[in-house]
Amino acid sequence: MSQTASSAASVTELAEALIACPSVTPATGMVFDCLEQQLAPLGFEVTRFVAGEAPDGPVENLFAVRRGPEGSRHFAFAGHLDVVPPGEGWTTAPFLPERRGDLLHGRGAVDMKGSIAAMVAAVREIPAEAGSVSFVITGDEEGPAVYGTRALIDLMRERGEVPDLCLVGEPTSVHRLGDMMKIGRRGSVNIFLDVDGVQGHVAYPHLADNPVTKLVAMLGELDALSLDEGTDWFQPSNLEITDITVGNPAHNVIPAKASARISIRFNDLHTGAELGARVTAIAEKHGGKARPVISGESFLTAPGRFSTLLAEAIRAETGVDPELSTSGGTSDARFLKDLCPVIEFGLCNATMHKRDEAVAMDDLDALARIYRRVVEAALADSAAT
Amino acid sequence: MSQTASSAASVTELAEALIACPSVTPATGMVFDCLEQQLAPLGFEVTRFVAGEAPDGPVENLFAVRRGPEGSRHFAFAGHLDVVPPGEGWTTAPFLPERRGDLLHGRGAVDMKGSIAAMVAAVREIPAEAGSVSFVITGDEEGPAVYGTRALIDLMRERGEVPDLCLVGEPTSVHRLGDMMKIGRRGSVNIFLDVDGVQGHVAYPHLADNPVTKLVAMLGELDALSLDEGTDWFQPSNLEITDITVGNPAHNVIPAKASARISIRFNDLHTGAELGARVTAIAEKHGGKARPVISGESFLTAPGRFSTLLAEAIRAETGVDPELSTSGGTSDARFLKDLCPVIEFGLCNATMHKRDEAVAMDDLDALARIYRRVVEAALADSAAT
Repeated sequence: MSQTASSAASVTELAEALIACPSVTPATGMVFDCLEQQLAPLGFEVTRFVAGEAPDGPVENLFAVRRGPEGSRHFAFAGHLDVVPPGEGWTTAPFLPERRGDLLHGRGAVDMKGSIAAMVAAVREIPAEAGSVSFVITGDEEGPAVYGTRALIDLMRERGEVPDLCLVGEPTSVHRLGDMMKIGRRGSVNIFLDVDGVQGHVAYPHLADNPVTKLVAMLGELDALSLDEGTDWFQPSNLEITDITVGNPAHNVIPAKASARISIRFNDLHTGAELGARVTAIAEKHGGKARPVISGESFLTAPGRFSTLLAEAIRAETGVDPELSTSGGTSDARFLKDLCPVIEFGLCNATMHKRDEAVAMDDLDALARIYRRVVEAALADSAAT
Repeated sequence: MSQTASSAASVTELAEALIACPSVTPATGMVFDCLEQQLAPLGFEVTRFVAGEAPDGPVENLFAVRRGPEGSRHFAFAGHLDVVPPGEGWTTAPFLPERRGDLLHGRGAVDMKGSIAAMVAAVREIPAEAGSVSFVITGDEEGPAVYGTRALIDLMRERGEVPDLCLVGEPTSVHRLGDMMKIGRRGSVNIFLDVDGVQGHVAYPHLADNPVTKLVAMLGELDALSLDEGTDWFQPSNLEITDITVGNPAHNVIPAKASARISIRFNDLHTGAELGARVTAIAEKHGGKARPVISGESFLTAPGRFSTLLAEAIRAETGVDPELSTSGGTSDARFLKDLCPVIEFGLCNATMHKRDEAVAMDDLDALARIYRRVVEAALADSAAT
């Protein structure tokens, strides 16, 4: 940070300011004011808007862009200012950032207000002439995400502000900063299964039609499915039965209805629609119905120039050789991949979503330097896709 | 009823008096006062007691006996004065007995205050010298039945009042009075199944242990069991899955626990304990636990002198040839069979447990005559077992 004016806030100070704005998902208002105040002085044109209605909204979103010279490349940082609820049992107050030894404590320290602070610190150091840089920041990544990044993508398309590359600041590092980036994510589909039967007395089963019998057979067949063996970049797709509901308190009654829910995390050999159709066929074979709800399709930014530039930046600042992974849950990259190549890289995730979430302050500084390096390299490299 | 003094109440009037005492299960008090007032003038020694504590008690029970000459045989009538809740939508007030045309309306008309009235009317006509007659009447047959007939059996054993034969007045007739008696009932065992797993995120199934997977496999194996092919007198034993509970609202979470409940209705090829052990072994094979709760063992009073005498009485009064059946749910005969041979016979069951429960008044009179015939024949016939 040697080029920073001594009066500029440190990365830790930028993160503290964001953490001090409580923003349990879905987030609106104060935390966006804070980020706008950090970005506007750096030459960013900031657009904020609230999208959606209950139950999945309203949600606040922010798009900030600092345009480079005509025809220059466009690098986007993406992320979220909402956080998961703090829960009980914190050592410090979750929304009062506190430095203890080498660590900064607070909800969002790693997921992902710390990363956003590092992005802000990075762009302070990047000359405007290097190219266009934007921030694609939602207040609903941790929730249903219906009116968050999807609405930002619509806005960017409408304005013709489609980036060349996008880096999502999710906490992808595991044991030390830089050891893992995510070049893809599995897709996710939840499928709701229902079987209707005919209620009756257990003593007269011939007068009833037990839906649980059919549901158990259906789930047995679904659980035995082998979806694939995995790919070079993805682990095998996986199906889990996550809930079954019958809700029959009467010991001597055959119930009228039985329901279940399954979750499939799938790699790029599948689509949510194809899996939904496949499960629906099995459900119908057993006399039931299936209602698939696709949370996100899989994405893969195949290893190439973008991942290489990021790996070089990480190695230069940390000495660590990052693993290119596709493991874990979904993120907003599932939407952003429709705009341009997208990779996720950020802080260590050991404390994310847990009590006493904390980040090493040295990591905040190092992450800002990595972000600066990769943006400058990507803006300068027209082959980076 | 030709021998009855003209001042004696009709069977319908006796039934009306019992129906007019609301006695939703578990029953105590007024309805027992009413029956005691009907029996005491007929020479019965009446014992009433309240047994049990919450949650399955307290329950009132009545044992009334009119002893015949020394060494005479002992015939017991058994039944219950509690009724199931009336529910909504009755044409008449459920506990205000109302005659409409040929029918007497009211909760308990057929199950089984009408039968108990017929028993009372029957014993009025039976000379005391014919033998001993008793009433074994509980206030909890429709509920958990923990402190009902079981407590009466204990009392009878303590007092040495063990009958030679027992007739339970459950409504066993189907289309017309006399078309069916029950010479047996299947046993019943409910088995509670639990599987513990390890909760986790669906994106990281290797860090979790999904209990639903194991439960579905367990239930699939249980549902495929063929317990037997039935016997001369019993239909095949049957297993139904009556409930499954996971209770996991989070779409992306593998739950920590899954439970189910099964109900087995079994014939006399099995015992509750044997079935409980068999299901427990399957549950444990799949990593779960099983907790069997036996509601009652099966019983069979093999066709013989008792069923023949009853069939003759039915035929003489109605012209109907009764079917000897073991179908349907459990009754207190599951307990009484430990005392002596037991058969169930009573009114038409079309309206039992339903709104607008009603009995044909002619059937009440005919049932009283059938009951009188069978008691007199059984007391006179030392071979009747």
